[in-house]
Amino acid sequence: MDERLAELRHRLGEVSDLRTALSLLDWDQMVMMPPAGAAVRAHRVATLERVAHERFSDDRIGELVEDLRDVEESLPYDSDDASLIRVTRRDWEKTRRVPPDLAAAQTQAASEGVEAWVVARENDDYASFRPWLDLHLELKHEYLACFEPADEPYDILLDDYEPGMRTAEVREVFDRLREKLVPLIAETAGTVSADIGAGPFPEAGQRELGLAAMTAFGYDSESFRLDSTVHPFCSSLGTADIRVTTRFHEHDLESLFSCMHEIGHGLYEHGVSPALERTPLGAGCSSGLHESQSRLWENVIGRSLPFCRWIHPRLTAAFPGALDSLTPEQFHRAVNKVQPSYIRVEADEVT
Amino acid sequence: MDERLAELRHRLGEVSDLRTALSLLDWDQMVMMPPAGAAVRAHRVATLERVAHERFSDDRIGELVEDLRDVEESLPYDSDDASLIRVTRRDWEKTRRVPPDLAAAQTQAASEGVEAWVVARENDDYASFRPWLDLHLELKHEYLACFEPADEPYDILLDDYEPGMRTAEVREVFDRLREKLVPLIAETAGTVSADIGAGPFPEAGQRELGLAAMTAFGYDSESFRLDSTVHPFCSSLGTADIRVTTRFHEHDLESLFSCMHEIGHGLYEHGVSPALERTPLGAGCSSGLHESQSRLWENVIGRSLPFCRWIHPRLTAAFPGALDSLTPEQFHRAVNKVQPSYIRVEADEVT
Repeated sequence: MDERLAELRHRLGEVSDLRTALSLLDWDQMVMMPPAGAAVRAHRVATLERVAHERFSDDRIGELVEDLRDVEESLPYDSDDASLIRVTRRDWEKTRRVPPDLAAAQTQAASEGVEAWVVARENDDYASFRPWLDLHLELKHEYLACFEPADEPYDILLDDYEPGMRTAEVREVFDRLREKLVPLIAETAGTVSADIGAGPFPEAGQRELGLAAMTAFGYDSESFRLDSTVHPFCSSLGTADIRVTTRFHEHDLESLFSCMHEIGHGLYEHGVSPALERTPLGAGCSSGLHESQSRLWENVIGRSLPFCRWIHPRLTAAFPGALDSLTPEQFHRAVNKVQPSYIRVEADEVT
Repeated sequence: MDERLAELRHRLGEVSDLRTALSLLDWDQMVMMPPAGAAVRAHRVATLERVAHERFSDDRIGELVEDLRDVEESLPYDSDDASLIRVTRRDWEKTRRVPPDLAAAQTQAASEGVEAWVVARENDDYASFRPWLDLHLELKHEYLACFEPADEPYDILLDDYEPGMRTAEVREVFDRLREKLVPLIAETAGTVSADIGAGPFPEAGQRELGLAAMTAFGYDSESFRLDSTVHPFCSSLGTADIRVTTRFHEHDLESLFSCMHEIGHGLYEHGVSPALERTPLGAGCSSGLHESQSRLWENVIGRSLPFCRWIHPRLTAAFPGALDSLTPEQFHRAVNKVQPSYIRVEADEVT
């Protein structure tokens, strides 16, 4: 291998390791950490962010990606090496603009904010969370100021999630969707009478069912694990170390659909070639693509009639009595009910 | 605060954060990680070790502790600040001698070795683990070569666990102990007929019992958690984030005593003043002191007659039928039975 490329890979591998340690600190905070660990945890993540940021924005990485233009241009655009050099250059140029202390402050505020959010959510107390939103916004403005002005300020933030996409393009997509969706929801909301009822659906049965569905999709205990948390997410600590989370409410089956959603994220990360492990290419390439995978499994497959027919006998076995009068077809209609709803609030508040 | 001292504290805080991330990676590997995550995990820990090592052995820390001699000498020897400067200097001088790549190689070999050990242990297959011992020994020899020769080579390694203690001193202690212990064991082994039997003791009951004992000693779910693993250990991710681990065998009550042992380590770390958090003083000061705490709770308290009387009704409630004929006094004798045994092998092999 080209020596410069080997050095680049080595340096990027270290940054990936530091970033993964940060992901583990985050996952652990949401899933495992005893509550009193929160105060010092915020310092831990701030340091990991600062060190990863400093290492990645090092002059030497910039020199290497400049130096490697000849290699990049000699290779097909989509080859791993050309893509590695190109994506590293793009990310390096952005990261360079942001002072490590600002990146660390954002990460620290997120870690502290998430603790405040968990408490505020439980107590339905927006006021106690408001200062964290203010701080977040203030830091985002500092972040924006690191970049050349764009057509719209949000372009700069959007680029972190959908590289290259502009706010105006998203608005256009949403405008077209709104045109059809708003009347569609008005027309269909409340027209479905099928209902899965309020159980109770004991947690053990929900867990077993979530695992059964995910296993049918590609989950295995060699490379994945499932835990519960306040708001479901999926974290990848490597292509063969994927952490799915869900939450269990005794009176609904949200956990089943959240498992199918999160395993979609997980399968996308698990499907990355191990050859890309420890590089900036070793992860999903945008939030939009990620969400396309999670919603494929949750909605296109998980809420399909064939899948409902497959899971129906497992459901009635897991919750004897609770769903006896529901046919697979009624279950299919019930889980495709259309209604406006909120996310990131207590399920109790939504119903 | 003195500006130099503030800078020192800031730098040491970052090193503590990196080292804690490493501890979390280790804990996670032993307790949570899906097995296929092991390959890339070894790279993660090697990087964290290298970066923490580099940051701590930085020239600037050496300059600061030299510069701060006036502050150190103006303060009482045992004051936090004088101790911080003194302990940092001692650790810095040792760390400087070891190349970061060697430290990283040792950490990587340990992470890979532990995976090999888990498999070898399960299969009772020493041969498959032997190469890891060889590698470990080879790396230890490289480590030894970083230091000035001592009276005995082991002095250098011992100093990492018992700062300032020499092998000859330990030998003297062991010689005196051997003199009394060997005949004592010969005399008492097999003389106790009381036995707790082979249960079965279901895991849920053991867990409840372990938590009851630990809670009586100071465990609370705000700052501690309990999980199961292959060989019990305790990990501190902060003075208020202590991870106790144990293992459950259906046919013995080892988990109860391992919980009491590990909570001893945990309480020692939990008892550190939060003012020392994120400094080299924020942890137990030697393996010997640590073990004195764990064995205090496990043996002096946990195997005492008053404690056996306290736990006996909880035992019989947790395992109905299994211990009905055992009085508290017989339980006390059974758990103080003296017999030679091994550690770090399958319990089945020992009996």
